Amino acid sequence: MTVVGVVGGGQLARMMIPAAINLGLEIRVFAEAEGSPAALATTQVGDYRNLDELEKFARGVDVLTFDHEHVPTPVLIALRDAGVTVAPSPEALALTHDKIVMRKALSTMGAPQPLWAVAEGVDGLVDADAVGQVGGFPCIAKKPVGGYDGKGVRVIHSLPEIEDWLGVGPVLLEEKVRFVRELALLSARRVGGQWQSWAPVETRQHNGVCSEVIAPASGMDDAQINHARALSASLAEKIGVVGVLAVEVFELADGSLLVNELAMRPHNSGHVLTELSRTSQFEQHLRAVADMPLGSSDLLAPSGVMVNILGSLDDESVVSALAAEPEAKVHNYCKTPRAGRKVGHVVLLGDNSDDTLAKAQRVRDAIHEPR
Amino acid sequence: MTVVGVVGGGQLARMMIPAAINLGLEIRVFAEAEGSPAALATTQVGDYRNLDELEKFARGVDVLTFDHEHVPTPVLIALRDAGVTVAPSPEALALTHDKIVMRKALSTMGAPQPLWAVAEGVDGLVDADAVGQVGGFPCIAKKPVGGYDGKGVRVIHSLPEIEDWLGVGPVLLEEKVRFVRELALLSARRVGGQWQSWAPVETRQHNGVCSEVIAPASGMDDAQINHARALSASLAEKIGVVGVLAVEVFELADGSLLVNELAMRPHNSGHVLTELSRTSQFEQHLRAVADMPLGSSDLLAPSGVMVNILGSLDDESVVSALAAEPEAKVHNYCKTPRAGRKVGHVVLLGDNSDDTLAKAQRVRDAIHEPR
Repeated sequence: MTVVGVVGGGQLARMMIPAAINLGLEIRVFAEAEGSPAALATTQVGDYRNLDELEKFARGVDVLTFDHEHVPTPVLIALRDAGVTVAPSPEALALTHDKIVMRKALSTMGAPQPLWAVAEGVDGLVDADAVGQVGGFPCIAKKPVGGYDGKGVRVIHSLPEIEDWLGVGPVLLEEKVRFVRELALLSARRVGGQWQSWAPVETRQHNGVCSEVIAPASGMDDAQINHARALSASLAEKIGVVGVLAVEVFELADGSLLVNELAMRPHNSGHVLTELSRTSQFEQHLRAVADMPLGSSDLLAPSGVMVNILGSLDDESVVSALAAEPEAKVHNYCKTPRAGRKVGHVVLLGDNSDDTLAKAQRVRDAIHEPR
Repeated sequence: MTVVGVVGGGQLARMMIPAAINLGLEIRVFAEAEGSPAALATTQVGDYRNLDELEKFARGVDVLTFDHEHVPTPVLIALRDAGVTVAPSPEALALTHDKIVMRKALSTMGAPQPLWAVAEGVDGLVDADAVGQVGGFPCIAKKPVGGYDGKGVRVIHSLPEIEDWLGVGPVLLEEKVRFVRELALLSARRVGGQWQSWAPVETRQHNGVCSEVIAPASGMDDAQINHARALSASLAEKIGVVGVLAVEVFELADGSLLVNELAMRPHNSGHVLTELSRTSQFEQHLRAVADMPLGSSDLLAPSGVMVNILGSLDDESVVSALAAEPEAKVHNYCKTPRAGRKVGHVVLLGDNSDDTLAKAQRVRDAIHEPR
C-alpha cells in the first residue's frame, strides 16, 4: 500500500483523508500539535522546521506532500537529498514561500501579472522609484513572507504607512489593479506531466478573506476558458509542479487575466469541487503525488457554491444548517473557535449560480443565527 | 463533538470515516483485529461478544452503531441497560441475527414475502409438512444464523441434502421464487421517525455474491417506485430502525415485490450512492444515528453502476483501473487477498445504464487483467 505523508495537520490534510480512504492509500500526517483537524491520521507531532523530526516521519512514507507551504527550503532539499520523494519539489514550493521570489519567477516565465517592484528601507531611505514602477499611490504593499488571508497586505497612500515593515526587510509593492472580479484556476499535474484542470471559479473576498466561491465562474465563453486553461497549463509545466496548483488571478474589464497568487496544494477556492466535480481537488492531489492517473474534472451540476464559515461551528449549528437545507454539505473542520478563523464550509449544488448562492447564504445564516 | 462508536472494522466502518470527517463527527471503531480496513479510526481491538470490552469502548461514545450484525442480543441489551445509546436498537437488530426470527416478524408486520417454513430434524425425522408449505422441491434451505454472501444457503431437491444442517438445529425453508430480478430498497430513519429513501436499485448476483448494482433500477414507473417506497417506509417504521435499512426484494413478473432479506446498516447494494446521490448511505447512516437531519437522496446523474471487486486489489491494479477510465471511482478496502473475498468496488456514473455498466465492467476487466 502506498503511504502518503502530509506535513501539516490543518483542514487541507483533514480533507485528504477521505480521498485516501477511497483510493486505498495510507495517509499519515505530521502535525504541529495534538488535536489538529487531521488528528485522525496523525502519526507524529513535531516541528516542521526540524529536519531530524521530519526525516524520521518521512522514512515511513513513499511520498511527502504538504498541507501548507511553511517548511523551509533547505529542510526540503535536505529531505530530498536523503532520498525522500517530495511533491511538489522544493524548487516549486520555494515560489510560494516568498512573494518577491514568486513575482520574479512569474516575470521570467512571461506570465501576465500586476506591475510590481521591491521597496527596501535602508537607513530610513526608500528607493522612490519603486512606487513609480507600480503606477504610484495608492498601491498594494505586501510582506514577502508569512502573509495569509489578507494578513501582511496593505493598501498604502504613502511609504510611512509601511514604516514598521520597511525596517525589517524588503517589501513587495504591487499596482492596485482595477479588476472586475477574482478567479481561481485549479489544476493538477502528475509526475511525468499529465495535467488536468477544472473550469475556472470565481472567488469573492470579504476583508481579505475568501468568503464565497462560485463555480464555474459565470459568463466565460470558450475562448476565455481556453485562455485561462492555457495560462495555468503553462505555469504548471514551467514550475514543474506535482499536485494541485491554484492560480489566483484578477480578471480585467477586457477579459484579460493577471496572476495574483500561487498555491501548490489543495486550496480554499477548490473546496466546491468535492461535491461539484467527479474528482475532488483532494483526490486529484493524492493521485498526482502518488503517481496515479488523474481523474475526470467534469462537473456534476450546472452550478456549485461554497461559503466559508468563520469563527465557530459546533454540532448544534451543523444541525441547524442541515435542517435549513437537506441538500447542504457542511464540512466542519473541528477547530477551536476564534473570531475570523476558517472553521468550516458549506457547499450547495444547483441549476444556476444566483439561486445556489442564495441557498448557501441562507445555510450560513442558519449557522450564525443566535440560538 | 459527537462521538460515534462503530462495532466492527470492515469496509462499512471504513467507509463511514469520510462521512464522519465531513460532518465533523468523531468516529471510533471497535475492531476484531489490528490492521482492519477501518484501522485508521480504530481505538480498541477486542471481542464483540465480550460485554466488558464493549462497555469499556461504549463509555467513550455518544452512540453505538455497527458494521455488522453479529453482536449478541443479550450483550446489546446489557449495553443499553448500562445507559449506552444503541442504534439501531437491540430489538431491531435481533431480526437480522436469525432468518427464522426475521420471517416471523415480517409475517407479523404483514410484509409480502416468499412462502416459508421451519424444518427441524428430531432424531433423524423431519416434519415433511414444512416442504409442502413452501411449495415442494426444489426449494431454498437457509441456515438461520451466520450465513452471508450465499454461504449457508442451498437450493435443495431432497431433505438429505441438508442432513448436515438438520442435526444442529432448525433450518429455514423458503419457496424457490421465480423472480425477474432482485432489487434493493435503501432508506434511513432518524430517531423520532424522519425517514428518507433512495430510488430502488437493481442488484445482480454471481454465485450468490452481489456482482453489480444498477441505479436507479430501470423501467420502474412512479406507481412501482411509490409501492416500493411504501413497503420500505412501513418496514422502517414498524421495526423502528434507526440508521440505514436495506430491504432486499424479489421483483416478480407482475411487478409485485417479496422481501428476501433485511440489513440495518449501510449495505453493499448502496455503495453506488456515494457518487450517485447527494447523500451517501454512510453519511445518511451517521446523520440518522447521531440524530441530525437527514440529507437529500436526489441523484446527480441519470445512471450509476457499481461492480464489486473480488479476490485481490493492489495499488498497481487501481492504477490500471484509473488509466482505463479516468471517471472511475475505485474504492480499495485494503484487505488481505483471498479468493472470492470482497476487496473493493468501482462506481461509474453515466447517461444510461447499459453504457455505464459496460464501462464499469471494462474497468473491472482492467483490474483483473494479468500484468
